[in-house]
Amino acid sequence: MAGLFITLEGIEGVGKSTALTYLEKLLQEAEIEVVTTREPGGTSLGEMVREWILSGIHGELSGELEALLMFAARSHHIDKVIKPALNAGHCVICDRFTDATFAYQGAGRGTNPEFLRVLKQAVQGNFEPDLTFLLDAPVEVGMQRIAGRPTDHFEQEATPFFERIRKFYLRLAKEHTERIITIDANRPREDIERDLKRYLCQFLEAIPLRDG
Amino acid sequence: MAGLFITLEGIEGVGKSTALTYLEKLLQEAEIEVVTTREPGGTSLGEMVREWILSGIHGELSGELEALLMFAARSHHIDKVIKPALNAGHCVICDRFTDATFAYQGAGRGTNPEFLRVLKQAVQGNFEPDLTFLLDAPVEVGMQRIAGRPTDHFEQEATPFFERIRKFYLRLAKEHTERIITIDANRPREDIERDLKRYLCQFLEAIPLRDG
Repeated sequence: MAGLFITLEGIEGVGKSTALTYLEKLLQEAEIEVVTTREPGGTSLGEMVREWILSGIHGELSGELEALLMFAARSHHIDKVIKPALNAGHCVICDRFTDATFAYQGAGRGTNPEFLRVLKQAVQGNFEPDLTFLLDAPVEVGMQRIAGRPTDHFEQEATPFFERIRKFYLRLAKEHTERIITIDANRPREDIERDLKRYLCQFLEAIPLRDG
Repeated sequence: MAGLFITLEGIEGVGKSTALTYLEKLLQEAEIEVVTTREPGGTSLGEMVREWILSGIHGELSGELEALLMFAARSHHIDKVIKPALNAGHCVICDRFTDATFAYQGAGRGTNPEFLRVLKQAVQGNFEPDLTFLLDAPVEVGMQRIAGRPTDHFEQEATPFFERIRKFYLRLAKEHTERIITIDANRPREDIERDLKRYLCQFLEAIPLRDG
């Protein structure tokens, strides 16, 4: 497989969408074909699952059910969107991926991580992002940034939920320094973008694209 | 949990719907409250999954993806419909349940049964039907019965697919004589209904309803 798979992770309000647009622009300037996508989402099934889970209109869902739906949608997303794009040599930038399931359904909702690992293994085997940017900011900063915009099912959770998620993300980044780069997102946009650019360039220079 | 959980299994065209209606009538005559439901289906998520998988418009889906969606829908169905009804002391009759996932996605599509067992354990633990009627008929008999009615994604499969499923169901019934009763469905309706009635009455007399 040629191509490069980049994911963006982080809690609500840390600026993932802005970072995604910026990375897309950088890669396009380097004449690399870019496909941007998101999870849950990215396919008809993914968008249906997104709508279904985030609407919150179906009552309290167990973390296990959310995880099953996320991995079902992910299976479809990998097969129909991500791998075909990588095989065509494109760069895929995805707003959230498997790390988010371990963070939200696992650390956030308390779903057994062993259950998540079994699902992950079954759905994606050893397939992982080449590079993950974790945008990190204190929970209250993220909450302030999303204040005023319409909130979904997850965004209505209380602060301790997001504290658990943030802590999990930071630990994961320490355990996976080979692919996860933590960016301090509690700074002016220019500083964040300078870091994104620096790390992306370092990565593109240091690591050959995936081989088939 | 009080209540009684009955499932109906079998390939296409063996008369599950007719049997369900008949069992419902028998139980109602015995003044037992009955809830009838189906899988995939039974909840908003289940019906969405049903529509999504059976429509066949989303291209070739892997057996793993189908199984993930089936178990996600099942998790919701058990939590929101089946267990609440059983807890209220009702009898639940469900047109297909977990056995069908092992039969269709497992034996039919070739999904690793270990993957299905992991999902089953995670979603339902030891929760099983009290009684399962397997309606059995040769594949060609079933195919003839559905000829002329609109077919879904599964019904368009070729005969060997259904032969594998039928064979799996018959083996499962031999391994689980404590709950699965095989009914020869290649007979006149009166004969099938006489058997259903006899086994149901034997079951109701022999086995006390579930205890909380």
